[in-house]
Amino acid sequence: MRKFDINEDPHRRYNPLINEWVLVSPHRSKRPWQGQKEAVNTVALPEYDPECYLCAGNVRMNGEKNPDYKGSFVFENDFAALKQEPIDFGGNEEGSFFKAQPERGISRVVCFSPRHDLTLPEMDVDGIVNIIQTWQREYTDLGAIDYINHVQIFENKGSVMGCSNPHPHGQIWAQSSLPTQVQKTQDNLKAYFDKNGTNLLQDYLKEELKVKERVVVENDHFAAIVPFWAIWPFETMIVSKRHITKITDFTEDEVAAFAVILKKLTTKYDNLFETSFPYSSGIHQAPTDGEAHPEWQFHMHFYPPLLRSASVKKFMVGYEMMGESQRDITPEKSAEMLRNLSEVHYKQK
Amino acid sequence: MRKFDINEDPHRRYNPLINEWVLVSPHRSKRPWQGQKEAVNTVALPEYDPECYLCAGNVRMNGEKNPDYKGSFVFENDFAALKQEPIDFGGNEEGSFFKAQPERGISRVVCFSPRHDLTLPEMDVDGIVNIIQTWQREYTDLGAIDYINHVQIFENKGSVMGCSNPHPHGQIWAQSSLPTQVQKTQDNLKAYFDKNGTNLLQDYLKEELKVKERVVVENDHFAAIVPFWAIWPFETMIVSKRHITKITDFTEDEVAAFAVILKKLTTKYDNLFETSFPYSSGIHQAPTDGEAHPEWQFHMHFYPPLLRSASVKKFMVGYEMMGESQRDITPEKSAEMLRNLSEVHYKQK
Ligand SMILES: O=P(O)(O)O[C@H]1O[C@H](CO)[C@@H](O)[C@H](O)[C@H]1O
Ligand SMILES: O=P(O)(O)O[C@H]1O[C@H](CO)[C@@H](O)[C@H](O)[C@H]1O
Repeated sequence: MRKFDINEDPHRRYNPLINEWVLVSPHRSKRPWQGQKEAVNTVALPEYDPECYLCAGNVRMNGEKNPDYKGSFVFENDFAALKQEPIDFGGNEEGSFFKAQPERGISRVVCFSPRHDLTLPEMDVDGIVNIIQTWQREYTDLGAIDYINHVQIFENKGSVMGCSNPHPHGQIWAQSSLPTQVQKTQDNLKAYFDKNGTNLLQDYLKEELKVKERVVVENDHFAAIVPFWAIWPFETMIVSKRHITKITDFTEDEVAAFAVILKKLTTKYDNLFETSFPYSSGIHQAPTDGEAHPEWQFHMHFYPPLLRSASVKKFMVGYEMMGESQRDITPEKSAEMLRNLSEVHYKQK
Repeated sequence: MRKFDINEDPHRRYNPLINEWVLVSPHRSKRPWQGQKEAVNTVALPEYDPECYLCAGNVRMNGEKNPDYKGSFVFENDFAALKQEPIDFGGNEEGSFFKAQPERGISRVVCFSPRHDLTLPEMDVDGIVNIIQTWQREYTDLGAIDYINHVQIFENKGSVMGCSNPHPHGQIWAQSSLPTQVQKTQDNLKAYFDKNGTNLLQDYLKEELKVKERVVVENDHFAAIVPFWAIWPFETMIVSKRHITKITDFTEDEVAAFAVILKKLTTKYDNLFETSFPYSSGIHQAPTDGEAHPEWQFHMHFYPPLLRSASVKKFMVGYEMMGESQRDITPEKSAEMLRNLSEVHYKQK
């Protein structure tokens, strides 16, 4: 019988953050692709677009006028999925399968820059520092509201990720409950902490920094790695090297280092297929429920859909939806490709 | 304080099959959509396409020639994600985060019909009966292989679901482990069965058939409903009314009734936006590990991505990936829309 070769043989990998497995089929990346291709936008954007509802000075759908902002600009989402109004909940019928509960929350949009044509990799480090400070302020302000227990900071980038406006921006959805994925992560971090007295992601990062093969870029304070259990072809996670539970605990040096690693990672992403690389990213950190949460470790996920080129993405469909997430290229190979890419943006060459 | 109104107020619903919540924002379906639109294929397909590798008599990429098949036709996937070869696994290092295990399996393609231009809703009931019998045979044959413990039958339909060939076909991935989603479902079904001595989905279906508001179509043996906890806008689930753990336990009447409900449901889907409606579907049933599994109940999931029209889909992205699945239209409203649609295919009118 042949000996197991993780670089060649179909296998499953275990994700301890959410207690789920992923199916890895290294040999399968060779299959030809005859399916759907994504549209690739190659039109250069203007610095200011009079039609864009996020550009400074423009009027949004609800009639409000954006200020003439310079750094970042935050406003309440005009079509929020959550509402702030408190609701009188009668409760569910005992034993019924129709179990629901009202959910209160606040949903905001964060414009990253007045420049319509820049995304993170093309902004300068100061501009990114400004975004991080905005995230810190929002985490503090929203977290201070008594009924808000979780603040989800995220970005959908690119039309393939459901983003309808190329103006650089992210969102924040703050709410009373811990969302499903966060609750799962917390449960696993907590169980690990209770058992070992240490932080799961700190311990994991130490192993990764020893073997190095999944590290994409690192500096004194952060590392960007392709997790051993990554499901998306070029998924990465930025983890702080120090045990930090939330973004407001960053030192000034850490804010700067985080800005640098964000710029480097997203530059490599753009360079991979020489395209504005689509992804959804999001920060996972301690809930704002007033507890200490030593089990938490600040980290940021990047879930990019592209697989082979600017136009061919990975489809997480039938088997993946019914069975299990599946990937065709190993995390080690993806990390190597990203690591070897320049830290200078392809448009700047 | 206003009283909670499930038709108007943001809320979360609980899915007991996988122990997860979904965020429902009924008011949000009114937001305008300026984002990506899917390409809509309106070109009529020929009955036979000389370029199609699934059509009868044609030669596939690997040089094999398809037989001149009449009903359905099954072959091993030429680019399988799983391999049959047994692998000698050394085991994982104790306590390491790099936890992997080799996975053995078989991956097959099931052509539904020699007709290149027909999908389920346009096939006649006999043709669908033939597919169900093929699924039964595959479940039996694959399940009988000693190392195969799970047989996942599924279909990716439409280019937006990563399907690269419009020729009607599904897939079967059979493997040694229970995939993540199936394991989760089994754990919850089992816990319910151990606690109540009854079947979760049987009990749930009884509640649904009493209130009726989420039933799309039903007959003597099956019901198609939009689950109370559905995440996709027009997600449905077909459940058998009798306690049946696997497809091979169907009576002849049940096979016929399943074919009829499959045809009716997919016809309504096509009629919704007058388009060949994309989805991923898949059957969840008892594993083939040789145990009895009374906790299981045969059911089939349909996860269709479209939200507002043939070209506008729901994006499960940033918040959904980092936080929790989110929907904009209530399951009750979706069920009503589907229920009110004709059972005659729009092309036949
Ligand atoms: O096997 P196919 O049709 O080539 O591929 C499609 O279905 C598979 C199973 O859901 C997925 O893994 C692929 O991402 C998808 O493109
Ligand atoms: O809020 P947006 O940008 O209009 O919408 C986008 O992001 C949301 C949050 O991830 C998703 O719920 C939507 O499906 C997506 O299109």
